[in-house]
Formats: sequence, structure tokens, C-alpha cells
Amino acid sequence: MMIVADNLRVTLTAIGRAVERQDPVPIRQLATACRDSGARGIDLNSGPLSRAPKEKMEFLVRTVQTAVDLPLFLDTSNPEAMAAGLAACRGRAVINGVSLEPERLRRILPLARRHDADLVAYLLGPDGHVPADPAGRMSAAVQLFTKCRNAGIPAARLIIDPIVAPLSWQDGNRQNMGVLEVIRTLPDLLGQPVRTIAGLSNLTTGAPDPAARRRYQAAFLPMLAAAGLDMILMNVLDPVLVRTAAACADITEGGIVAWA
Amino acid sequence: MMIVADNLRVTLTAIGRAVERQDPVPIRQLATACRDSGARGIDLNSGPLSRAPKEKMEFLVRTVQTAVDLPLFLDTSNPEAMAAGLAACRGRAVINGVSLEPERLRRILPLARRHDADLVAYLLGPDGHVPADPAGRMSAAVQLFTKCRNAGIPAARLIIDPIVAPLSWQDGNRQNMGVLEVIRTLPDLLGQPVRTIAGLSNLTTGAPDPAARRRYQAAFLPMLAAAGLDMILMNVLDPVLVRTAAACADITEGGIVAWA
Repeated sequence: MMIVADNLRVTLTAIGRAVERQDPVPIRQLATACRDSGARGIDLNSGPLSRAPKEKMEFLVRTVQTAVDLPLFLDTSNPEAMAAGLAACRGRAVINGVSLEPERLRRILPLARRHDADLVAYLLGPDGHVPADPAGRMSAAVQLFTKCRNAGIPAARLIIDPIVAPLSWQDGNRQNMGVLEVIRTLPDLLGQPVRTIAGLSNLTTGAPDPAARRRYQAAFLPMLAAAGLDMILMNVLDPVLVRTAAACADITEGGIVAWA
Repeated sequence: MMIVADNLRVTLTAIGRAVERQDPVPIRQLATACRDSGARGIDLNSGPLSRAPKEKMEFLVRTVQTAVDLPLFLDTSNPEAMAAGLAACRGRAVINGVSLEPERLRRILPLARRHDADLVAYLLGPDGHVPADPAGRMSAAVQLFTKCRNAGIPAARLIIDPIVAPLSWQDGNRQNMGVLEVIRTLPDLLGQPVRTIAGLSNLTTGAPDPAARRRYQAAFLPMLAAAGLDMILMNVLDPVLVRTAAACADITEGGIVAWA
């Protein structure tokens, strides 16, 4: 299971200010810290870019690329910022992401095709809402898979995000058990293996206590790993979570031969 | 997921000495501590009882019963000690356990029937070895299920233990992924829900570092919980593991409505 850092967010005061001032130092420092803590990919979460979205995403991509040599997940709902970020990426970029919302499909699929980019696909309905049950997520997966294929995007470029539900939702536990089921059954459903990603911090949206957040995230992470998740989008600067991810890899993939 | 304490072992010096001297105090103290830490059952692990096995198991049962009112799991391979423990139990006891080994079947099934006891059944081969793959575990489950039914033991009394493999085994990771699969598929396989139990400390047999033991156990516990495990045999005096078990229950069964 590959760790993708969710730490680089423009909504963080220090990062937002650095982007405004075109100051690369805090951004480089954070990207380097993420890599050194075990990230094998970095999500660039632009937040709502009200002014100069293209320039800001381009600045983020260029700056992070001077610090680390890792896949960058361009996390913006603004298609122009996405296009600018993709153009600035040296290696293969990851578009984060697309869903069945018609406007997203129309704008994002051609970008993914043109740049031969990896593409995160959210299992949401066409209205942008989370499906009520696993069947709704499965249906979204099949539809997204088909739409990507029809747009000329190979299955190997696709990364399915089944959308972790907040525990505070009344049916959060049922939803998240459905998320695990979807991850387990996707290869059978689609007739081939397709990579998967999940955003761990979604689980504890709204939780005020950092210890509780960590405890629930550290308990859900192994469930995702055992279901066969390929990539986990998470706080890579939390050493407990990183050690948990490493233990999961040892357990599911076999990393321990002798304890000595 | 119900926690069963694996803490009360005669192989612990203090407990072994207390049993030898017929001193109830350390045993009562440990049993009370287990209950207060969240145990909803207590395993009485007699170890190899070389002298006076019947008297020692009887003493253990009587002593623990004066301290706590919890189901007791009589964990001995000595059929006479098992019979003595069952006779001393006030409530319904749990026999831990039986396997396809012919001698065990012959001695243990009649005891389970006579006492209407719950019965832990290990998914081992008739030779007492761990099956090489999930299919071997499934086959053992079906055979044990049938043998119990034929012996007049209702399915509701059965508790299947798929046998967690040590990570240090060369195929430990494959074995344990098989354990999860078996837990998930048992209800379909047997045509009805059957309770399951797993021994968490098996995972880290031979691991010298307590921090590593805890880390791996805390990562495997959620995998077991998500697979649908009913009972976890574990060190209930480790607060990290107990908090992890509680978080798992919240995630899989839904325990959180609001964070405030």
C-alpha cells in the first residue's frame, strides 16, 4: 500500500501564504518532510482557488518538483488549474479527480487522455452525492470504467476512490463496510485489477480530538489494507499512522521472516 | 467483537506459583483486572499440568468464579482436567477446544454434549497441523461442523478458531489472509452464522520487542474485526489494544453519532 501525503493543502495558512507570495521555501520544506516520512506520492490540494488559479497550481507543481521526485496528485475541481498543473508536470501526473458529474466528465476526461495521466475516479453519483449503498458504488465504478474506456483512457491509468464516509454520518459504519466490500470486489466486477485509493482523514471529518482522530484512522487503515487498497491518502507526518501502514504491508504482503 | 482475556496462564510465574500453593489472591486479582479492563470472557490456560491436573483446573475455575462473573474458556489439552473444570463451572463453560485430531474428538465431544458447553473448534488437520491454504481451513470447518452435529452439539454452541499464523512463518502473511477469508466466508460455507474466535498473540509468536508485538497486533486486530470476527482472545491489559478493539467496534458496528 503506497502512502500519498494529504499534507500539502493551500487551505493551511502557511502554504496558502506561500502560494500567494510565490515563496517556494515552505512548500519545498513540507514536500521534503512528506517524502522523508514515507510518502510515495504527494497530493497538491489547491482548495478553492479564487484568484489566479492556473498560476497558483502551476507554481505549486513547479515548486514541489524542485524538492521531490514523486508522482503528484493534482487535487483541484478547477479544470483550468488542472490543465495548467498537468502542463507543468515533468513526469506522469495524477488527476484527482473525476466523477460521474457531467461537467467533470466533459472537462477532465479529455485532459487525462491528452496527458496520458493517471486518473482518480470518485464513486459518486451524477449529482455528486455519495451513493446510499455498495450497489450504488459498484454501479458508479462500472459507469466510470466504461466512460473512461470510451474516452480512450486505458484501465491501467484508472485509480478508483470509493469515498470513505465520515463516522459521524448516521450510516457511516454501513457506508464504510460497503467501501471495504467495493475494494475487495472491484477486480471481479470490472473483470480486471484496477488500482484503488482512499482518503483516510474523511473518516474523522468533524472530530475535534486529535487522539480520537488518530485512533479511528489507525483502526480503519488496516481494514482498507486487508481489503486490498493500493494507495492511501493520509497524513504522512503522523508517525503512528505511518508505522501502522508499514505493519499492514508486512502482514498483508509478507515482510517479516525473522524478528531478530 | 467480544474481548476474551488471554492473560490468565499457569505458565506465568506468579499464577503457576499461586496454583501450586492454592493461593487464590493473585488469581483473583488478575481476573478482576481483566474484567475491569474490558474482558467479557477469561481464558484459563492451564499449560502442561504435570502433577494433579484435575485439582489444579478445578482450583482455577473455583477461584476465578469468586472474583468475576464472566464466561470461562477452559484451555487445556488434558481431557481429565477439562472434565474437572467443566464440573466446577457454575455457568455455561467454554471448552477450548477441539480439533480433527481423533483422540481430541473422542474425548472432548462427549464432554461438550454432556455439559451443553460452548466449544471452540480449531481449524487444524487430523494430524494437528495448520492447513496449508484457505481450502484446507474450509474443509476442516465443514468436517468439524458435521462431527459436532453428529455428536448432538448444536451449531449455536460452536465457536470456530481459524488459527492465526505467526508472522515469522515463511507463508505467515498468506496464511493470515486466508484466515480473514475463512472468517468472511464461513456463514456461506456452513449455511448459517457460526461464531468465530482468534488468538491475537499467535501473530507475533517469537517476537522479542513488546512495541513491535503491539504494533502488529494492533494492525491485525482491525483486519479480523472487519472480516466479522466475534471474539478476540488477547492481552486485555494492553490499553492500546483495548482502545483499538473499541475503535473497531465503532467503525464496524456504528458507535459514533456525534463527536462532541
